[in-house]
Amino acid sequence: MAKPIERLIHELVKFPGVGEKTAVRFAFHVLREQADFAKSLAQALIDVKERVRLCSTCCALTEDDPCPLCRDPKRDTRVICVVEDPSAMLAIEKTHAYRGRYHVLHGALSPLDNIGPDDIRIAELLRRLEQGNVDEVVLATDMNVEGEATALYLTRLIKPTGIKITRLSSGIPVGGDLEYIDATTLTRAFEDRRAL
Amino acid sequence: MAKPIERLIHELVKFPGVGEKTAVRFAFHVLREQADFAKSLAQALIDVKERVRLCSTCCALTEDDPCPLCRDPKRDTRVICVVEDPSAMLAIEKTHAYRGRYHVLHGALSPLDNIGPDDIRIAELLRRLEQGNVDEVVLATDMNVEGEATALYLTRLIKPTGIKITRLSSGIPVGGDLEYIDATTLTRAFEDRRAL
Repeated sequence: MAKPIERLIHELVKFPGVGEKTAVRFAFHVLREQADFAKSLAQALIDVKERVRLCSTCCALTEDDPCPLCRDPKRDTRVICVVEDPSAMLAIEKTHAYRGRYHVLHGALSPLDNIGPDDIRIAELLRRLEQGNVDEVVLATDMNVEGEATALYLTRLIKPTGIKITRLSSGIPVGGDLEYIDATTLTRAFEDRRAL
Repeated sequence: MAKPIERLIHELVKFPGVGEKTAVRFAFHVLREQADFAKSLAQALIDVKERVRLCSTCCALTEDDPCPLCRDPKRDTRVICVVEDPSAMLAIEKTHAYRGRYHVLHGALSPLDNIGPDDIRIAELLRRLEQGNVDEVVLATDMNVEGEATALYLTRLIKPTGIKITRLSSGIPVGGDLEYIDATTLTRAFEDRRAL
């Protein structure tokens, strides 16, 4: 195969979930399309790395600092929702169910991967809390081992400040059929059952 | 979401089989990785469109013209395998079962998509055959309606030249369980059954 195609495939397989076959399909797609597609994509890749930075307040990805959400006067400054990554923030924003601010940790505690408290944006969160004016911290880290450990760690750190700490509820997904729910989730749903 | 991220996602969804969610995951991957990744990928995209062209002999994708395969003295010049696209050629090359030359049509006849004989590289194939020195043309177009129609069309064109024309066999895949083979393939396997 021509060297430039091999090099493109070599780069494309670095995307998560993209194997050799998919990368080949992507590369041939680029070759089939007009040169404009390759150029626009190349420019978008360069731009995203040059122009996007972390918001100095909430650590979200943004072009302007502070980010539009931190500048939005309609968002409640007294509630901070802590997420692991920008995609979790995006998922929550899509629900339109939350009107407070965010804090993006950019990771979760994971001793096995050598990710400790200093490797994620915990110091930035504590600094925000020290400035006062926050009534509630919603821990919205993932419901896996790392996310739960991070939530527990943050709870211990924040508890002494007296700020209210909450965690997203976990249980059976809405529309979920009990028959197909894994045992761990079902156990959690029992433990966390609500009084009606 | 920051504009540069949106623009990158907008470009990424143009890849075949990539939806909004996958594009978002790819974009965040680019943001997480070092800037080198975005730069190398951008350069590879530009290079592939600038440096890769069609071989003037076989229409394969190549950096040099004629392509390395057409220049390879060890490849049998008397057999030409006709494929629809570069990925089919790649798949055949991986088998190491074929030592002749290729001809890449870059498409298949498809009246519904307005793709006629002049839209694919049929003229280039006929010109090669006119130059003589070809004993056999292996029609390796896909086993779908368009591929079969293209094979039939080429057969009618080439037949008068007296050149031997063959078509890849179709039937039950090796390792295939009869229970799971579709009826059309099974019918074909009956029709094309071999004497033992």
